[in-house]
Amino acid sequence: MTVPDSSVPSVPKLRGRPRSPATDAAIIEAALRLLEEGASVGGLSIERIAREAGVGKATVYRRWPGKDALMLDVLRSLEEPSPEPAGVSVRDDLVTVLEFMRRRGLAKRHSALLRTVVTQMHAHQELWRAYDENVIAARRASLRAVLRRGRESGEIRADVDLELLADLFTGPMLSRAMLHEWKELPEGLAERIVDTVLAGVSPRD
Amino acid sequence: MTVPDSSVPSVPKLRGRPRSPATDAAIIEAALRLLEEGASVGGLSIERIAREAGVGKATVYRRWPGKDALMLDVLRSLEEPSPEPAGVSVRDDLVTVLEFMRRRGLAKRHSALLRTVVTQMHAHQELWRAYDENVIAARRASLRAVLRRGRESGEIRADVDLELLADLFTGPMLSRAMLHEWKELPEGLAERIVDTVLAGVSPRD
Repeated sequence: MTVPDSSVPSVPKLRGRPRSPATDAAIIEAALRLLEEGASVGGLSIERIAREAGVGKATVYRRWPGKDALMLDVLRSLEEPSPEPAGVSVRDDLVTVLEFMRRRGLAKRHSALLRTVVTQMHAHQELWRAYDENVIAARRASLRAVLRRGRESGEIRADVDLELLADLFTGPMLSRAMLHEWKELPEGLAERIVDTVLAGVSPRD
Repeated sequence: MTVPDSSVPSVPKLRGRPRSPATDAAIIEAALRLLEEGASVGGLSIERIAREAGVGKATVYRRWPGKDALMLDVLRSLEEPSPEPAGVSVRDDLVTVLEFMRRRGLAKRHSALLRTVVTQMHAHQELWRAYDENVIAARRASLRAVLRRGRESGEIRADVDLELLADLFTGPMLSRAMLHEWKELPEGLAERIVDTVLAGVSPRD
Protein backbone atom coordinates (compact mmCIF):
# COMPACT_ATOMS: atom_id res chain seq x y z
CA MET A 1 0.00 0.00 0.00
CA THR A 2 1.22 3.48 -0.82
CA VAL A 3 0.17 6.38 1.33
CA PRO A 4 -1.27 9.15 -0.85
CA ASP A 5 1.47 11.33 -2.22
CA SER A 6 1.15 14.63 -0.39
CA SER A 7 2.34 16.47 -3.49
CA VAL A 8 -0.98 15.54 -5.12
CA PRO A 9 -3.55 17.65 -3.31
CA SER A 10 -6.88 16.04 -2.49
CA VAL A 11 -9.88 18.01 -3.65
CA PRO A 12 -11.93 19.15 -1.77
CA LYS A 13 -8.99 20.67 0.09
CA LEU A 14 -7.82 18.96 3.24
CA ARG A 15 -8.26 20.89 6.43
CA GLY A 16 -6.46 21.00 9.75
CA ARG A 17 -2.82 20.75 8.78
CA PRO A 18 -0.23 19.78 9.85
CA ARG A 19 -1.25 16.13 9.43
CA SER A 20 0.49 13.15 10.81
CA PRO A 21 1.21 10.76 7.94
CA ALA A 22 1.01 7.82 10.33
CA THR A 23 -2.52 8.72 11.38
CA ASP A 24 -3.55 9.26 7.75
CA ALA A 25 -2.21 5.83 6.88
CA ALA A 26 -3.90 4.20 9.87
CA ILE A 27 -7.27 5.64 8.87
CA ILE A 28 -6.88 4.59 5.24
CA GLU A 29 -5.76 1.13 6.27
CA ALA A 30 -8.76 0.84 8.58
CA ALA A 31 -11.10 1.67 5.70
CA LEU A 32 -9.34 -0.85 3.46
CA ARG A 33 -9.62 -3.51 6.15
CA LEU A 34 -13.36 -2.93 6.50
CA LEU A 35 -13.82 -3.09 2.73
CA GLU A 36 -11.75 -6.25 2.59
CA GLU A 37 -13.98 -7.77 5.25
CA GLY A 38 -16.99 -7.13 3.06
CA ALA A 39 -18.24 -3.67 4.04
CA SER A 40 -19.68 -1.79 1.08
CA VAL A 41 -18.53 1.69 0.07
CA GLY A 42 -22.12 2.87 0.52
CA GLY A 43 -22.48 1.21 3.91
CA LEU A 44 -19.23 2.48 5.47
CA SER A 45 -19.50 5.44 7.84
CA ILE A 46 -16.79 7.80 9.08
CA GLU A 47 -17.73 6.66 12.56
CA ARG A 48 -17.05 3.02 11.78
CA ILE A 49 -13.77 3.80 10.05
CA ALA A 50 -12.65 5.97 13.00
CA ARG A 51 -13.52 3.21 15.46
CA GLU A 52 -11.61 0.65 13.39
CA ALA A 53 -8.60 2.99 13.23
CA GLY A 54 -8.76 3.65 16.95
CA VAL A 55 -9.16 7.41 16.55
CA GLY A 56 -11.98 9.83 17.19
CA LYS A 57 -14.37 10.97 14.46
CA ALA A 58 -12.99 14.50 14.79
CA THR A 59 -9.52 13.22 13.89
CA VAL A 60 -10.90 11.87 10.62
CA TYR A 61 -12.87 15.04 9.88
CA ARG A 62 -9.79 17.18 10.47
CA ARG A 63 -8.20 15.33 7.56
CA TRP A 64 -11.11 14.73 5.19
CA PRO A 65 -14.25 16.82 4.89
CA GLY A 66 -16.39 13.73 4.37
CA LYS A 67 -16.54 10.12 3.35
CA ASP A 68 -16.23 10.76 -0.37
CA ALA A 69 -12.93 12.61 0.04
CA LEU A 70 -11.63 9.86 2.30
CA MET A 71 -12.72 7.17 -0.17
CA LEU A 72 -10.83 8.96 -2.92
CA ASP A 73 -7.64 8.70 -0.91
CA VAL A 74 -8.44 5.07 -0.11
CA LEU A 75 -8.63 4.30 -3.82
CA ARG A 76 -5.59 6.44 -4.51
CA SER A 77 -3.63 4.44 -1.95
CA LEU A 78 -4.18 1.36 -4.12
CA GLU A 79 -2.79 3.02 -7.22
CA GLU A 80 0.75 2.81 -8.43
CA PRO A 81 2.29 6.14 -9.46
CA SER A 82 1.93 6.54 -13.22
CA PRO A 83 5.13 6.71 -15.27
CA GLU A 84 6.50 9.86 -16.86
CA PRO A 85 6.61 9.50 -20.67
CA ALA A 86 10.26 9.64 -21.75
CA GLY A 87 9.53 12.31 -24.33
CA VAL A 88 11.55 10.83 -27.17
CA SER A 89 9.31 8.91 -29.57
CA VAL A 90 5.60 9.61 -29.39
CA ARG A 91 4.93 6.01 -30.32
CA ASP A 92 7.01 4.78 -27.36
CA ASP A 93 5.36 7.26 -25.00
CA LEU A 94 1.93 6.00 -26.04
CA VAL A 95 3.12 2.46 -25.36
CA THR A 96 4.27 3.56 -21.88
CA VAL A 97 0.82 5.01 -21.12
CA LEU A 98 -1.03 1.92 -22.35
CA GLU A 99 1.38 -0.47 -20.69
CA PHE A 100 0.66 1.26 -17.38
CA MET A 101 -3.06 0.74 -17.99
CA ARG A 102 -2.47 -2.91 -18.83
CA ARG A 103 -0.54 -3.46 -15.59
CA ARG A 104 -3.22 -1.66 -13.65
CA GLY A 105 -5.82 -3.95 -15.21
CA LEU A 106 -3.77 -7.00 -14.22
CA ALA A 107 -3.39 -5.67 -10.66
CA LYS A 108 -7.15 -5.24 -10.43
CA ARG A 109 -7.67 -8.81 -11.58
CA HIS A 110 -5.27 -10.14 -8.99
CA SER A 111 -6.68 -8.14 -6.11
CA ALA A 112 -10.24 -8.81 -4.99
CA LEU A 113 -9.93 -5.71 -2.82
CA LEU A 114 -8.98 -3.41 -5.69
CA ARG A 115 -11.73 -4.84 -7.85
CA THR A 116 -14.31 -4.39 -5.10
CA VAL A 117 -13.29 -0.82 -4.40
CA VAL A 118 -13.18 0.17 -8.07
CA THR A 119 -16.51 -1.38 -9.05
CA GLN A 120 -18.23 -0.02 -5.96
CA MET A 121 -16.84 3.43 -6.64
CA HIS A 122 -18.16 3.12 -10.17
CA ALA A 123 -21.64 2.42 -8.80
CA HIS A 124 -21.46 5.77 -6.96
CA GLN A 125 -21.60 8.23 -9.81
CA GLU A 126 -20.37 11.26 -7.85
CA LEU A 127 -17.45 9.39 -6.34
CA TRP A 128 -16.50 7.97 -9.72
CA ARG A 129 -16.45 11.37 -11.30
CA ALA A 130 -14.43 12.81 -8.41
CA TYR A 131 -11.98 9.93 -8.80
CA ASP A 132 -11.70 10.71 -12.48
CA GLU A 133 -11.20 14.41 -11.85
CA ASN A 134 -8.62 13.91 -9.10
CA VAL A 135 -6.70 10.77 -9.93
CA ILE A 136 -7.22 10.11 -13.62
CA ALA A 137 -7.12 13.74 -14.79
CA ALA A 138 -3.36 14.01 -14.30
CA ARG A 139 -2.80 10.90 -16.43
CA ARG A 140 -5.13 12.21 -19.07
CA ALA A 141 -3.26 15.52 -19.17
CA SER A 142 0.00 13.66 -19.59
CA LEU A 143 -1.48 11.62 -22.45
CA ARG A 144 -2.81 14.78 -24.10
CA ALA A 145 0.66 16.33 -23.95
CA VAL A 146 2.08 13.28 -25.74
CA LEU A 147 -0.60 13.49 -28.43
CA ARG A 148 -0.07 17.21 -28.89
CA ARG A 149 3.63 16.59 -29.30
CA GLY A 150 2.84 13.90 -31.88
CA ARG A 151 0.80 16.34 -33.90
CA GLU A 152 3.58 18.89 -33.76
CA SER A 153 6.23 16.39 -34.78
CA GLY A 154 4.09 15.06 -37.62
CA GLU A 155 3.85 11.56 -36.14
CA ILE A 156 0.09 12.08 -35.76
CA ARG A 157 -2.32 13.61 -38.26
CA ALA A 158 -3.40 17.12 -37.39
CA ASP A 159 -7.03 16.69 -38.39
CA VAL A 160 -8.13 14.33 -35.60
CA ASP A 161 -9.17 16.04 -32.37
CA LEU A 162 -7.23 15.30 -29.21
CA GLU A 163 -10.23 13.95 -27.30
CA LEU A 164 -10.97 11.39 -29.99
CA LEU A 165 -7.28 10.50 -30.35
CA ALA A 166 -7.04 9.84 -26.61
CA ASP A 167 -10.07 7.54 -26.76
CA LEU A 168 -8.77 5.66 -29.80
CA PHE A 169 -5.58 4.73 -27.96
CA THR A 170 -6.94 4.18 -24.45
CA GLY A 171 -10.44 2.84 -25.21
CA PRO A 172 -9.34 -0.60 -26.46
CA MET A 173 -7.14 -1.14 -23.38
CA LEU A 174 -9.69 0.28 -20.95
CA SER A 175 -12.57 -1.79 -22.25
CA ARG A 176 -10.51 -4.95 -21.81
CA ALA A 177 -9.12 -3.98 -18.44
CA MET A 178 -12.27 -2.53 -16.90
CA LEU A 179 -15.29 -3.96 -18.69
CA HIS A 180 -14.26 -7.37 -19.99
CA GLU A 181 -12.22 -8.68 -17.13
CA TRP A 182 -12.16 -12.21 -18.50
CA LYS A 183 -10.29 -11.19 -21.65
CA GLU A 184 -6.55 -11.58 -21.69
CA LEU A 185 -4.17 -8.69 -21.14
CA PRO A 186 -1.11 -10.27 -22.75
CA GLU A 187 2.34 -8.76 -22.91
CA GLY A 188 2.76 -6.79 -26.10
CA LEU A 189 -0.87 -5.67 -26.15
CA ALA A 190 0.04 -2.01 -25.58
CA GLU A 191 2.44 -2.09 -28.54
CA ARG A 192 -0.11 -3.79 -30.79
CA ILE A 193 -2.84 -1.28 -29.98
CA VAL A 194 -0.57 1.73 -30.48
CA ASP A 195 0.94 0.47 -33.74
CA THR A 196 -2.41 -0.56 -35.20
CA VAL A 197 -4.15 2.70 -34.30
CA LEU A 198 -1.23 4.63 -35.76
CA ALA A 199 -1.21 2.64 -38.98
CA GLY A 200 -4.96 2.13 -39.31
CA VAL A 201 -6.69 -1.12 -40.19
CA SER A 202 -7.53 -0.50 -43.82
CA PRO A 203 -4.77 -1.51 -46.22
CA ARG A 204 -2.31 1.27 -47.02
CA ASP A 205 -1.49 1.57 -50.66
CA MET B 1 -40.04 -2.21 -21.66
CA THR B 2 -39.54 -5.20 -23.90
CA VAL B 3 -40.23 -8.67 -22.63
CA PRO B 4 -37.24 -10.94 -23.28
CA ASP B 5 -37.31 -12.34 -26.76
CA SER B 6 -38.13 -16.01 -26.37
CA SER B 7 -36.01 -16.82 -29.42
CA VAL B 8 -32.95 -15.92 -27.35
CA PRO B 9 -32.64 -18.71 -24.82
CA SER B 10 -31.72 -17.80 -21.27
CA VAL B 11 -28.80 -19.74 -19.89
CA PRO B 12 -29.03 -21.55 -17.50
CA LYS B 13 -31.98 -23.06 -19.33
CA LEU B 14 -35.47 -22.12 -18.21
CA ARG B 15 -37.54 -24.85 -16.69
CA GLY B 16 -41.23 -25.59 -16.46
CA ARG B 17 -42.56 -24.63 -19.84
CA PRO B 18 -45.04 -23.61 -21.12
CA ARG B 19 -44.68 -20.15 -19.60
CA SER B 20 -47.22 -17.40 -19.54
CA PRO B 21 -45.61 -14.31 -21.05
CA ALA B 22 -47.86 -12.11 -18.88
CA THR B 23 -46.57 -13.71 -15.69
CA ASP B 24 -42.95 -13.42 -16.90
CA ALA B 25 -43.49 -9.76 -17.59
CA ALA B 26 -45.20 -9.17 -14.23
CA ILE B 27 -42.25 -10.74 -12.38
CA ILE B 28 -39.68 -8.75 -14.35
CA GLU B 29 -41.64 -5.56 -13.85
CA ALA B 30 -41.84 -6.25 -10.12
CA ALA B 31 -38.06 -6.62 -9.96
CA LEU B 32 -37.59 -3.39 -11.93
CA ARG B 33 -40.01 -1.57 -9.61
CA LEU B 34 -38.05 -2.71 -6.55
CA LEU B 35 -34.75 -1.66 -8.12
CA GLU B 36 -36.26 1.68 -9.08
CA GLU B 37 -37.35 2.15 -5.47
CA GLY B 38 -33.76 1.70 -4.37
CA ALA B 39 -33.38 -2.02 -3.70
CA SER B 40 -29.90 -3.26 -4.58
CA VAL B 41 -29.25 -6.19 -6.91
CA GLY B 42 -27.42 -7.89 -4.06
CA GLY B 43 -30.20 -7.22 -1.57
CA LEU B 44 -33.13 -8.40 -3.69
CA SER B 45 -34.49 -11.87 -2.98
CA ILE B 46 -36.70 -14.09 -5.11
CA GLU B 47 -39.15 -14.01 -2.22
CA ARG B 48 -39.41 -10.24 -2.25
CA ILE B 49 -39.77 -10.12 -6.04
CA ALA B 50 -42.49 -12.79 -5.93
CA ARG B 51 -44.37 -10.90 -3.24
CA GLU B 52 -44.13 -7.66 -5.23
CA ALA B 53 -45.40 -9.47 -8.36
CA GLY B 54 -48.23 -11.06 -6.41
CA VAL B 55 -47.16 -14.61 -7.24
CA GLY B 56 -45.75 -17.48 -5.22
CA LYS B 57 -42.02 -18.19 -5.01
CA ALA B 58 -42.59 -21.48 -6.84
CA THR B 59 -44.00 -19.56 -9.81
CA VAL B 60 -40.75 -17.61 -10.09
CA TYR B 61 -38.59 -20.72 -9.66
CA ARG B 62 -40.54 -22.53 -12.39
CA ARG B 63 -39.32 -19.81 -14.75
CA TRP B 64 -35.83 -19.00 -13.49
CA PRO B 65 -33.50 -21.34 -11.63
CA GLY B 66 -32.30 -18.52 -9.38
CA LYS B 67 -31.90 -14.81 -8.91
CA ASP B 68 -28.96 -14.45 -11.29
CA ALA B 69 -30.91 -15.89 -14.21
CA LEU B 70 -33.88 -13.66 -13.38
CA MET B 71 -31.61 -10.60 -13.13
CA LEU B 72 -30.22 -11.37 -16.57
CA ASP B 73 -33.71 -11.20 -18.02
CA VAL B 74 -34.39 -8.03 -16.03
CA LEU B 75 -31.40 -6.37 -17.65
CA ARG B 76 -32.27 -7.85 -21.02
CA SER B 77 -35.74 -6.33 -20.73
CA LEU B 78 -34.12 -2.89 -20.68
CA GLU B 79 -32.16 -3.50 -23.86
CA GLU B 80 -33.25 -2.53 -27.33
CA PRO B 81 -32.84 -5.24 -29.96
CA SER B 82 -29.56 -4.70 -31.76
CA PRO B 83 -29.71 -3.90 -35.47
CA GLU B 84 -28.79 -6.32 -38.24
CA PRO B 85 -25.83 -4.99 -40.24
CA ALA B 86 -27.02 -4.35 -43.79
CA GLY B 87 -24.15 -6.34 -45.27
CA VAL B 88 -23.22 -3.94 -48.03
CA SER B 89 -20.25 -1.80 -47.01
CA VAL B 90 -18.16 -3.01 -44.08
CA ARG B 91 -17.54 0.60 -43.10
CA ASP B 92 -21.28 1.29 -42.90
CA ASP B 93 -21.90 -1.92 -40.96
CA LEU B 94 -19.28 -0.89 -38.41
CA VAL B 95 -20.97 2.48 -38.11
CA THR B 96 -24.30 0.69 -37.48
CA VAL B 97 -22.75 -1.36 -34.66
CA LEU B 98 -21.11 1.67 -33.03
CA GLU B 99 -24.17 3.86 -33.49
CA PHE B 100 -26.19 1.26 -31.59
CA MET B 101 -23.64 1.41 -28.77
CA ARG B 102 -23.80 5.20 -28.76
CA ARG B 103 -27.60 5.16 -28.47
CA ARG B 104 -27.39 2.57 -25.72
CA GLY B 105 -24.93 4.83 -23.88
CA LEU B 106 -27.32 7.76 -24.23
CA ALA B 107 -30.23 5.63 -22.99
CA LYS B 108 -28.21 4.65 -19.94
CA ARG B 109 -27.48 8.30 -19.21
CA HIS B 110 -31.12 9.21 -19.44
CA SER B 111 -32.36 6.38 -17.29
CA ALA B 112 -31.32 6.25 -13.65
CA LEU B 113 -32.85 2.78 -13.53
CA LEU B 114 -30.76 1.44 -16.41
CA ARG B 115 -27.62 2.99 -14.95
CA THR B 116 -28.33 1.51 -11.53
CA VAL B 117 -28.98 -1.94 -12.89
CA VAL B 118 -25.94 -1.95 -15.18
CA THR B 119 -23.45 -0.66 -12.60
CA GLN B 120 -24.80 -2.98 -9.92
CA MET B 121 -24.56 -5.93 -12.28
CA HIS B 122 -20.99 -4.89 -13.01
CA ALA B 123 -20.20 -5.05 -9.29
CA HIS B 124 -21.34 -8.70 -9.30
CA GLN B 125 -18.62 -10.34 -11.35
CA GLU B 126 -20.48 -13.58 -12.07
CA LEU B 127 -23.63 -11.79 -13.15
CA TRP B 128 -21.64 -9.43 -15.34
CA ARG B 129 -19.93 -12.25 -17.09
CA ALA B 130 -23.21 -14.13 -17.56
CA TYR B 131 -24.70 -10.96 -19.02
CA ASP B 132 -21.79 -10.72 -21.40
CA GLU B 133 -22.06 -14.34 -22.41
CA ASN B 134 -25.81 -14.24 -22.92
CA VAL B 135 -26.69 -10.77 -24.10
CA ILE B 136 -23.51 -9.25 -25.49
CA ALA B 137 -22.12 -12.40 -27.11
CA ALA B 138 -24.65 -12.27 -29.96
CA ARG B 139 -23.66 -8.69 -30.74
CA ARG B 140 -20.00 -9.59 -30.60
CA ALA B 141 -20.57 -12.47 -33.02
CA SER B 142 -22.34 -10.14 -35.40
CA LEU B 143 -19.45 -7.65 -35.20
CA ARG B 144 -16.94 -10.44 -35.81
CA ALA B 145 -18.84 -11.48 -38.92
CA VAL B 146 -18.61 -7.93 -40.24
CA LEU B 147 -14.88 -7.80 -39.55
CA ARG B 148 -14.30 -11.17 -41.19
CA ARG B 149 -16.18 -9.97 -44.24
CA GLY B 150 -14.01 -6.84 -44.26
CA ARG B 151 -10.87 -8.93 -44.31
CA GLU B 152 -12.23 -11.04 -47.14
CA SER B 153 -13.26 -8.03 -49.18
CA GLY B 154 -9.91 -6.33 -48.61
CA GLU B 155 -11.45 -3.39 -46.75
CA ILE B 156 -9.54 -4.48 -43.63
CA ARG B 157 -5.93 -5.64 -43.40
CA ALA B 158 -5.54 -9.37 -42.95
CA ASP B 159 -2.69 -9.17 -40.43
CA VAL B 160 -4.66 -7.78 -37.47
CA ASP B 161 -6.43 -10.38 -35.35
CA LEU B 162 -10.20 -10.21 -35.05
CA GLU B 163 -10.23 -9.81 -31.28
CA LEU B 164 -7.97 -6.76 -31.44
CA LEU B 165 -9.91 -5.33 -34.39
CA ALA B 166 -13.15 -5.62 -32.44
CA ASP B 167 -11.63 -3.79 -29.47
CA LEU B 168 -10.15 -1.04 -31.64
CA PHE B 169 -13.59 -0.18 -33.02
CA THR B 170 -15.74 -0.74 -29.93
CA GLY B 171 -13.30 0.26 -27.16
CA PRO B 172 -13.37 4.01 -27.82
CA MET B 173 -17.19 4.05 -27.84
CA LEU B 174 -17.52 1.72 -24.85
CA SER B 175 -15.10 3.63 -22.68
CA ARG B 176 -17.05 6.83 -23.30
CA ALA B 177 -20.44 5.23 -22.89
CA MET B 178 -19.70 3.02 -19.90
CA LEU B 179 -16.72 4.45 -18.04
CA HIS B 180 -16.73 8.19 -18.69
CA GLU B 181 -20.38 8.98 -18.49
CA TRP B 182 -19.77 12.71 -18.36
CA LYS B 183 -18.16 12.80 -21.81
CA GLU B 184 -20.32 13.68 -24.77
CA LEU B 185 -21.72 11.09 -27.13
CA PRO B 186 -22.41 13.43 -30.05
CA GLU B 187 -24.04 12.49 -33.31
CA GLY B 188 -21.43 11.49 -35.85
CA LEU B 189 -19.15 9.94 -33.22
CA ALA B 190 -19.65 6.41 -34.60
CA GLU B 191 -18.65 7.56 -38.08
CA ARG B 192 -15.59 9.42 -36.77
CA ILE B 193 -14.35 6.45 -34.79
CA VAL B 194 -14.83 4.00 -37.66
CA ASP B 195 -13.23 6.23 -40.27
CA THR B 196 -10.27 7.13 -38.07
CA VAL B 197 -9.55 3.56 -37.02
CA LEU B 198 -9.79 2.45 -40.64
CA ALA B 199 -7.46 5.20 -41.86
CA GLY B 200 -5.10 5.28 -38.87
CA VAL B 201 -3.86 8.36 -37.10
CA SER B 202 -0.36 8.59 -38.49
CA PRO B 203 -0.14 10.55 -41.75
CA ARG B 204 -0.51 8.43 -44.89
CA ASP B 205 2.02 9.21 -47.54
